[in-house]
Amino acid sequence: MEKRMPNELNVTHDPARKSFVESANKPNADFPIQNLPFGVYKRPGTQHRVGVATGDQIVDLLALVDAGLLQGDAQKAALATTNGGLNDLMSLRNPHSSALRSRLSDLLEISSSHREATGRALVPISQAQMQLPAKIGNFTDFMASSFHALRHRPGAVLSKTFQSLPVAYHSRASTVRVQQAIRRPNVQRQIADIVEFGPSHEMDYELELGIFIGVGNQLGAPVPIDDARDYIFGFCLLNDWSIRDVQRWESVPLGPFLAKSTLTTISPWVVTEEAMRPFKIAAFKRDPIESSPLPYLFSQTNESAGGYNIELEAAIRTETMRRASVPFHTLTRTNFRHMYWTVAQMLTHHMSNGCSLLPGDLLGSGTISGPEDESAACLMELNARGARPIPLPNGETRLWLADGDEIRITGRAVANGYASIGFGESQARVEPAVQWQERIEAAAE
Amino acid sequence: MEKRMPNELNVTHDPARKSFVESANKPNADFPIQNLPFGVYKRPGTQHRVGVATGDQIVDLLALVDAGLLQGDAQKAALATTNGGLNDLMSLRNPHSSALRSRLSDLLEISSSHREATGRALVPISQAQMQLPAKIGNFTDFMASSFHALRHRPGAVLSKTFQSLPVAYHSRASTVRVQQAIRRPNVQRQIADIVEFGPSHEMDYELELGIFIGVGNQLGAPVPIDDARDYIFGFCLLNDWSIRDVQRWESVPLGPFLAKSTLTTISPWVVTEEAMRPFKIAAFKRDPIESSPLPYLFSQTNESAGGYNIELEAAIRTETMRRASVPFHTLTRTNFRHMYWTVAQMLTHHMSNGCSLLPGDLLGSGTISGPEDESAACLMELNARGARPIPLPNGETRLWLADGDEIRITGRAVANGYASIGFGESQARVEPAVQWQERIEAAAE
Repeated sequence: MEKRMPNELNVTHDPARKSFVESANKPNADFPIQNLPFGVYKRPGTQHRVGVATGDQIVDLLALVDAGLLQGDAQKAALATTNGGLNDLMSLRNPHSSALRSRLSDLLEISSSHREATGRALVPISQAQMQLPAKIGNFTDFMASSFHALRHRPGAVLSKTFQSLPVAYHSRASTVRVQQAIRRPNVQRQIADIVEFGPSHEMDYELELGIFIGVGNQLGAPVPIDDARDYIFGFCLLNDWSIRDVQRWESVPLGPFLAKSTLTTISPWVVTEEAMRPFKIAAFKRDPIESSPLPYLFSQTNESAGGYNIELEAAIRTETMRRASVPFHTLTRTNFRHMYWTVAQMLTHHMSNGCSLLPGDLLGSGTISGPEDESAACLMELNARGARPIPLPNGETRLWLADGDEIRITGRAVANGYASIGFGESQARVEPAVQWQERIEAAAE
Repeated sequence: MEKRMPNELNVTHDPARKSFVESANKPNADFPIQNLPFGVYKRPGTQHRVGVATGDQIVDLLALVDAGLLQGDAQKAALATTNGGLNDLMSLRNPHSSALRSRLSDLLEISSSHREATGRALVPISQAQMQLPAKIGNFTDFMASSFHALRHRPGAVLSKTFQSLPVAYHSRASTVRVQQAIRRPNVQRQIADIVEFGPSHEMDYELELGIFIGVGNQLGAPVPIDDARDYIFGFCLLNDWSIRDVQRWESVPLGPFLAKSTLTTISPWVVTEEAMRPFKIAAFKRDPIESSPLPYLFSQTNESAGGYNIELEAAIRTETMRRASVPFHTLTRTNFRHMYWTVAQMLTHHMSNGCSLLPGDLLGSGTISGPEDESAACLMELNARGARPIPLPNGETRLWLADGDEIRITGRAVANGYASIGFGESQARVEPAVQWQERIEAAAE
């Protein structure tokens, strides 16, 4: 596999670059010309198509091919999306996706000589319905923030296991969506020694980052930590909806199951590993009394540049707030720099036993909680495990999510001297449970 | 969805039926004309193709189509396999697969009027390389034997959770194979307070049944227990290879991860739900002091006919035994009737929160241990959690699997008055670990 220097940057990262799409040049636009994230969209009556976001527009990749604007590796990369999904593009080794990024940056640049032809390949995001970016074969969720691990249980200390490996579990791939609604599930739980089944009382969000795998590894072939980056296609926001009442009841000894398979929502735009290079920072500094990583999880490159500087927020708007036009209220304000384990460590550990990762597989980073109170990244931390209702600006309070509540997650990678780039958003509203009997009847139809 | 009577039988189950393929009529043949399991095979230089096993032959489905021997629903079912996998056939609702089974039974019957033409569609199993029968999108593994749960931990009592729901975890889909080798993984573990990484010391098998999903359910749509059978396509044998040293170290609080993703092997032939109908028996009888299932997990039909009578064995042959031509030695002799939870209960619970199951998804039943010593279905039970070496007939002993050991799993469904049917076998040999440094170099090539 091609060897690259860490933080290898090129003209596509140049903060001085502007786009002829003016909305891409606005301060704090999510999708400036330095971002160029991939997504899958459709318009009413059309098939799924792959595009790249720029400002408030989508550049349609196959429209560029049809216009004769892509050649060589860039064209090959774009043609890998003819089936309307990103998996085949993800499975291509560089230089294909890098060539495509480079060409897209030139085509969209403010003094582009192909401005008119490129403009004909633009579709307003407002006219697009965003779809799941890839067929997700496998979804793995990590627990990689020590602050989350410590707030997660009463009186917890950081376990030796947590210090020694990035804890993870296989999660459910079939229930990952970009949709904007989550129906309250019926679950089994124990309350005061009574085991019962009914609509969950304890719905929670978890603010995470999603990592899409590009090139996969062969079964039985682990990957050293300094090569792990080559297996990352890109990043998205991820809300790992968590159903705490069933989670508490079902998780011993085999871990969470139905607590995590009601729904997982991700943001529809995949920000590529290449776009994220300016935002690499040092890995989290451990307390010196904690375990050092074993050699297979350690490298100088990872220590010095294995982290990412990504500012993240989760915000809530209740039904009452929405009706009164009260804006979203920020519950969580955190940063990916707080993660105890880096993405490269997650990948290397995952493949260390020979487990194969496939193009389009998704990893969840785990809840991105930091040290400050406001950086707790789920309700269970914010409410002190159900003990402390969370006040909202309109006088309401919440322990757990109520029907009609909306959760919105946003994120932005920042670095001095570089254009910051955004992830868009993941937003979904809690819908009331269908009664079991009605659900049975609906299923039987 | 079509409503059917439990244990609905038809002429394809008639024990008097014989096949013109003589090997299918031998006593205790795995694949008599009453079985007709589906599989995917290839011959050198050809694409994957779908066939049905009968005796020592494979009936190639598309060859029957080409010969004009299939019409209507049976033809439609066979044509769903043109891409060389079973997923599209699995996704068809009845009556298609049922019509195909009925027609295949007639074509193969000893007095078939299409004997010659059908004979031209036969391929000897000995010439075929068996493949994974479906693209497995999701793999869920249960723990549904109370005997396994009780032997699993020292001094265990059956937890209230185990009594109340079929415990399960999401497992890894990308590492399910039909292959005949498992490479010893490198894993992280703790030994006497030292955390280290290296070739596993504690490789184990787990004898399970695999359940392939046919028609899936929609996200958010649970399924009542008496309809659960409609979501089963069929059954296979499953060896849930378990790496106990990393499992013990990594599993708190999120359950097993790398312990289960080195490899899972299944037998290549999928025995359909329809073929299994004669072998339905009453569900496991709980101790009256244990919890009764909640209403969503209870039905009279399930209680009276939710179990299956399947005799199962796991056997070992070490390298030394193989060289001395010592035959396989049976380690486990058990029966699926010992399972505390039925397959219908597993399915209904899995979908109870609205989780969607997809055609080709795989469920593992969990280790099928029974009450007798010889019905313990993994080494961890047989060796009393590492305390008691297991004697082998040639004087060797085993606590855990050694390099060169082969594990073979077989199974047979039996019922008075019906032809018993077999599952074929799942067999794999333990190969030595690749040293981490070599593995890194191999991965970097």
